[in-house]
Amino acid sequence: MARQDYRARVYVTLRPSVLDPAGAAVESGLHGLGYDSVSSVRIGKYVELQLQAKDDVTARSQLDQICDRLLANPAIENYRFELDAITPADAEGESPALSPR
Amino acid sequence: MARQDYRARVYVTLRPSVLDPAGAAVESGLHGLGYDSVSSVRIGKYVELQLQAKDDVTARSQLDQICDRLLANPAIENYRFELDAITPADAEGESPALSPR
Repeated sequence: MARQDYRARVYVTLRPSVLDPAGAAVESGLHGLGYDSVSSVRIGKYVELQLQAKDDVTARSQLDQICDRLLANPAIENYRFELDAITPADAEGESPALSPR
Repeated sequence: MARQDYRARVYVTLRPSVLDPAGAAVESGLHGLGYDSVSSVRIGKYVELQLQAKDDVTARSQLDQICDRLLANPAIENYRFELDAITPADAEGESPALSPR
């Protein structure tokens, strides 16, 4: 059974109702550097990974499980992800998101 | 001088040449949970913030400075960002990215 390669980009963020001390610290640091107009700083996790699955539906369901079980804490975090089918050659190469700006 | 509100989404990732122990730990944890096909796990930061500026060019240049000076360590990290002009009403409300999946 041939399996398809996928690249996932996962964004894990604190639920809006949850206090974000790291975000508050960065915000006050930025104000201290003179960036007074900055507000609503929220810090989250950005995870890139590759996986193989027989089709998109299976890949999505695996990724949901991966997020629920390990990448995000459902009690305080939300997650969303983007999933792209990639060629085996892409799977070997560097992820475009990691290439310099 | 009227100022425009902006919402920024910043992605900070380790340069590809830099080892990612956190990513390796997550990868082995996922293998331990039975997700053997997962590979190339890389963990980064996802930062959301709002700022005001007189125009897009100024907002982008401020965000570059903010990334270079505080959000990313240029020696080992890359960053990229998305910047959207928002209405004052949006600026008050919850960021769409933070709303549950």
